[in-house]
Amino acid sequence: MPASSSKSSAKSGKAVCLLSGGLDSSTCLALACRDFECYALSFDYGQRHRIELEAAARVAHALGAKEHRTAKIDLRVFGGSALTSHQLAVPKHRTAQEMSGGIPVTYVPARNTIFLSYALAWAEVLESSDIFIGVNAIDYSGYPDCRPEFIAAFERMANLATKSGVEGRTLVKVHTPLIELSKAGIVKLAAELGVDFSLTHSCYDPTPDGHPCGQCDSCLLRQKGFDEAGLRDPLPYPA
Amino acid sequence: MPASSSKSSAKSGKAVCLLSGGLDSSTCLALACRDFECYALSFDYGQRHRIELEAAARVAHALGAKEHRTAKIDLRVFGGSALTSHQLAVPKHRTAQEMSGGIPVTYVPARNTIFLSYALAWAEVLESSDIFIGVNAIDYSGYPDCRPEFIAAFERMANLATKSGVEGRTLVKVHTPLIELSKAGIVKLAAELGVDFSLTHSCYDPTPDGHPCGQCDSCLLRQKGFDEAGLRDPLPYPA
Repeated sequence: MPASSSKSSAKSGKAVCLLSGGLDSSTCLALACRDFECYALSFDYGQRHRIELEAAARVAHALGAKEHRTAKIDLRVFGGSALTSHQLAVPKHRTAQEMSGGIPVTYVPARNTIFLSYALAWAEVLESSDIFIGVNAIDYSGYPDCRPEFIAAFERMANLATKSGVEGRTLVKVHTPLIELSKAGIVKLAAELGVDFSLTHSCYDPTPDGHPCGQCDSCLLRQKGFDEAGLRDPLPYPA
Repeated sequence: MPASSSKSSAKSGKAVCLLSGGLDSSTCLALACRDFECYALSFDYGQRHRIELEAAARVAHALGAKEHRTAKIDLRVFGGSALTSHQLAVPKHRTAQEMSGGIPVTYVPARNTIFLSYALAWAEVLESSDIFIGVNAIDYSGYPDCRPEFIAAFERMANLATKSGVEGRTLVKVHTPLIELSKAGIVKLAAELGVDFSLTHSCYDPTPDGHPCGQCDSCLLRQKGFDEAGLRDPLPYPA
């Protein structure tokens, strides 16, 4: 079903959807838009791949999100990640085996905890009890805060953190519709949902003109996903 | 024991301490400094009482924190609180009964969740497993994210969110040494620890020259605490 056809269907309520502009979060938003009026949330956190924020805006518009906001937050204040520090290099050309060997330097400490906390704040203001995040635990990058047990613990905490928890209203639900999909499965699902891949951005270390490097973990995982799905990625990778 | 005498004792490790510059967080930091090398963390989140950040810096220095950082984060992006919105007025002259009647308009959605998430990020970078927060569940302001069950749930989540959780290293502990104290008990404890009350700031709606209004919930709770403790608050309240 193309995403555009979902815009006319009845929506059950509001949902806050974390959106980086990458393949996973865009697919997650496309899914959420089928059933909810979606409020997409991105973060300007000092990431070296800030260009993903332009992708997020394009994707939110194309998928018919009700609103898209970007919170400017400071994750560089602590350092500790290659994604926010120019003193740490983004690893390139790593094999699948290397990627599976522990937590990489691109891990941003507590990032998903912080992102979900903001989503929780917006959801509370919107009186929404549904949050979507496009994490997946299969072809993920070894980040602890992409695991199902983390999401479940966040959800339990969220229901004690907020007004609705105190007042016994509807419980907060953190939806992770991609969590058990492989990257190839996500590519296929995105294609079914009508996600325009050319609008998305996955690279951790893009060229100055915004093209993907084709060599970082994120590019390599994305390419593997398209290869295994038998689909062509329209992004302009280097030859 | 005055706080200054603690500086020479052996410290068991690093701790991240949330510090607003108010009475509670300053007392909490003074306690933490007895046993830990403390990294104090404040937030510039668009609060109308930004002057508290100057108090936080003064207090961190006076208590001998190893470092004090202020993260600039955007909580106004969602609105929803009198502390961050100039469209909502800070309530004044409320009685204890009125304060106990539900969650007030000064509640900032998910604020402690967001603050603790940042503390968790810094703790991870510092390889610290100890976080201090000066919440209390007795003379608190009716905020859901000040309750013991919230803190316990955050701690469980934190231990699944981070590298140390995955790698089975020391578990994150969220210390809440004030959680069962009354405001009067906190005032007495602060006096014993040598906290200089004149450096702290509690008011939600200070005058342009930085003096406390004496009328908001936070001022009223503070005054009640000093009264019940039989101590004099040195801050320049209006006559």
